[in-house]
Amino acid sequence: MSENKAQILDEIKEQGEIVRKLKAEKSSKEQIGEEVAKLLALKARLSSTSECAADEDDVVQHKFTLKTPKGTRDYAPQHMALRLGVLEKIISVFKRHGAETIDTPIFELKEVLTGKYGEDSKLIYDLADQGGELLSLRYDLTVPFARYLAMNKITNIKRYHIAKVYRRDNPAMTRGRYREFYQCDFDIAGQYDPMIPEAECLRVVSEILDALQLGQFMVKVNHRLLLDGIFEACGVPQDKFRSICSAVDKLDKLSWEEVRAEMVDEKGLERDIADRISQYVLLNGSMDLVEKLLKDECLITKSKSAKEGLEAMKLLLQYTNLYGLSEKVRFDLSLARGLDYYTGVIYEAILLGDKRGESVGSIAGGGRYDNLVGMFDSRNKNVPCVGVSVGVERIFSVLEARMAADNQKIRTTEVHVFVASAQKNLLEERMKLCRDLWDAGLNTEQSYKKNPKLLAQLQYCEESGIPWAAILGES
Amino acid sequence: MSENKAQILDEIKEQGEIVRKLKAEKSSKEQIGEEVAKLLALKARLSSTSECAADEDDVVQHKFTLKTPKGTRDYAPQHMALRLGVLEKIISVFKRHGAETIDTPIFELKEVLTGKYGEDSKLIYDLADQGGELLSLRYDLTVPFARYLAMNKITNIKRYHIAKVYRRDNPAMTRGRYREFYQCDFDIAGQYDPMIPEAECLRVVSEILDALQLGQFMVKVNHRLLLDGIFEACGVPQDKFRSICSAVDKLDKLSWEEVRAEMVDEKGLERDIADRISQYVLLNGSMDLVEKLLKDECLITKSKSAKEGLEAMKLLLQYTNLYGLSEKVRFDLSLARGLDYYTGVIYEAILLGDKRGESVGSIAGGGRYDNLVGMFDSRNKNVPCVGVSVGVERIFSVLEARMAADNQKIRTTEVHVFVASAQKNLLEERMKLCRDLWDAGLNTEQSYKKNPKLLAQLQYCEESGIPWAAILGES
Repeated sequence: MSENKAQILDEIKEQGEIVRKLKAEKSSKEQIGEEVAKLLALKARLSSTSECAADEDDVVQHKFTLKTPKGTRDYAPQHMALRLGVLEKIISVFKRHGAETIDTPIFELKEVLTGKYGEDSKLIYDLADQGGELLSLRYDLTVPFARYLAMNKITNIKRYHIAKVYRRDNPAMTRGRYREFYQCDFDIAGQYDPMIPEAECLRVVSEILDALQLGQFMVKVNHRLLLDGIFEACGVPQDKFRSICSAVDKLDKLSWEEVRAEMVDEKGLERDIADRISQYVLLNGSMDLVEKLLKDECLITKSKSAKEGLEAMKLLLQYTNLYGLSEKVRFDLSLARGLDYYTGVIYEAILLGDKRGESVGSIAGGGRYDNLVGMFDSRNKNVPCVGVSVGVERIFSVLEARMAADNQKIRTTEVHVFVASAQKNLLEERMKLCRDLWDAGLNTEQSYKKNPKLLAQLQYCEESGIPWAAILGES
Repeated sequence: MSENKAQILDEIKEQGEIVRKLKAEKSSKEQIGEEVAKLLALKARLSSTSECAADEDDVVQHKFTLKTPKGTRDYAPQHMALRLGVLEKIISVFKRHGAETIDTPIFELKEVLTGKYGEDSKLIYDLADQGGELLSLRYDLTVPFARYLAMNKITNIKRYHIAKVYRRDNPAMTRGRYREFYQCDFDIAGQYDPMIPEAECLRVVSEILDALQLGQFMVKVNHRLLLDGIFEACGVPQDKFRSICSAVDKLDKLSWEEVRAEMVDEKGLERDIADRISQYVLLNGSMDLVEKLLKDECLITKSKSAKEGLEAMKLLLQYTNLYGLSEKVRFDLSLARGLDYYTGVIYEAILLGDKRGESVGSIAGGGRYDNLVGMFDSRNKNVPCVGVSVGVERIFSVLEARMAADNQKIRTTEVHVFVASAQKNLLEERMKLCRDLWDAGLNTEQSYKKNPKLLAQLQYCEESGIPWAAILGES
């Protein structure tokens, strides 16, 4: 190792300790940031040193960095087997509800994607400008869907789409968060009578979560108009609706006191307005709560939106009850959902832990977005849409963790028969038998060795979970 | 329209004619290139003009370019239904042979991909450098597979992988060639006895083409070592092997005279060497041809490779005959295949037209590549591989054309029952029936309107090909 390199390594160690210490002391962000920057600079110096010094230092060179890009992973056969099994169950629910499927390119013109995700637009992956169009990898499946509808002038469709999307987010791979991951969407586009498509989306979510046997779950529902109406009735200034809404959205993770502090201290809302809001957004229940709020003079007289939102909730709960979901759907006024493009009903499914009520997080969600397609149409012609996105990555994680805990093994092939031989020189006979079995449509394997050992063959069957072995031998 | 813009449009028209004329006259590449550059510059000026002048000129503005990126397309439900139907059949063959599936990220570190595709490396799509690793979109599924094996130290696996790959090729979309397209690969990796995995690959191709009912087909087989041996025996200088091999590869499209001209005039091969080559590469047949060539003193004594290649072919044909493929596999000495990484047996399946022998092009192909994994391994440790790639895009095109010609319609959903109502105010009843049918696992749809017309409902069933309608009404 060169002197220089060793010296930098020492400096990196020292600087690392400084950063750790500051973090432990919960120093200011600026101060930590400054020291982290120094650390990164040292690391950059190290890597350039390594490249220059490589020939001298390391005799055995790795010719390639053997890794997948940051935030991505390979899916081995056992992952794929689990994933495909889950997706098959989900797709069968989508088909049960008459959905078709479409696909769109992995990348879109950059201008199609930018500006649709607010703050998150910075997480979009761009393609290199290689002398052509400016392109970016899709960030979700909803914006490409809206582009597809507008471009092809499609005014009604019920489709599902399961595909990979890309976000240059800080990957937290240990918690199953990647930069390349699957989304799984079901959407109903078209001008229809109120709440009928919404109710079906909720039924779809419920059937999927039932089919996957993930445990108890609950679907929270709310309405954007009702939230707006509450803010209006409580006296929130119009220009603060969005930021107050995003504060409310945190009620699933923070206490009311913390959210209230954010509203008042950070966002400058008057204390008594915040308190008035709390009288509503902490409520949850069912049809009885809708009825109660519909009699709330303050709300109903002060806000037309609130009334509309409540009427919609009433209809939705009536329909979901008819669809057998009364135990599963809960009207929850704290549900706000982040994305700006929702315009009506919003919902979110959560898995309940072992103790009832203890949430292990959102597993599906969606809502109505009536204005997105219009953003792509030259004449602003809208196609009303409502959809649901199933959090398949989280579902995969839950099931993988469960299988690991139970020490379960998943079969990665579907072989019915293994053709084995008990003695030498039977390759031709094995081949003929394989041929007959393949001709008969049976999933069949044999060893690729001319004279495999019987024990090795049977062990392979054991490991692969192949139920039948046809053993050839002379009597 | 502004004066300026109209003027540029005129200039573009003029310049376009100049380019067309030069192309028609087959002028030099440089000359055409120069004029094309002028044309592109004009077009760039036009688009900047349009942007500036937009407010004045066009009242109705398209806010977005409503298109997919160049060389890509959306897949509508009818495309997807056809595609998924084809893939399902192919996957069932892969499963019949005990294959597992894996997936890899859509992009790889750039250094993993570059240098693997020779000339074609320039067609790789890069991602923008957004302050991180340098990444490129995968160009095929074979190199990521080799990287996966090396990285995970996997020494044997039989896997299939169906996924999109990306090439910045000149798209010929009218002929079904896109920049984003599916590949469908089956590979057997591992140290096994000779020709047993190869024979299975050929059996897999044959089962797939049988299952898809694309018509008569034939699988040409040859061996890289035999080709090398022929070149050696005929006196081709070692450093010309590769370029002469790529000339031979054109024999499926060009006559021997044309290929000979390329060898002699372009590649500087001696005439009599070329003529000696023709005595071999124009041959095709079956086991009898192998036997005949094994007795060819000139070939066998002059080249060890030729003997090895022929012995391998003998074994392969023996095995494929046992697998019931004697009518389908043809030993064809003109088959060379472009990619550099093949090291042993190579093969290519072609569809035969209505007149027997008239090829409509290659529909699957592959071969043995024993050195690719070693390129990724720090100690050059190799994993022998053999595989086949099914040309699914071509298969989709053939089937789509056939369906269009036959005026066939493909169902895009799998709905069993439509719940209709013959009169008003039955939405609740319809919902209850839908619920019961969904609970029973039946694929069920109803109208999203409260009071749909009976005729409209029945027409929808008709159009969607839904076989059953449950019609509600009061007696």
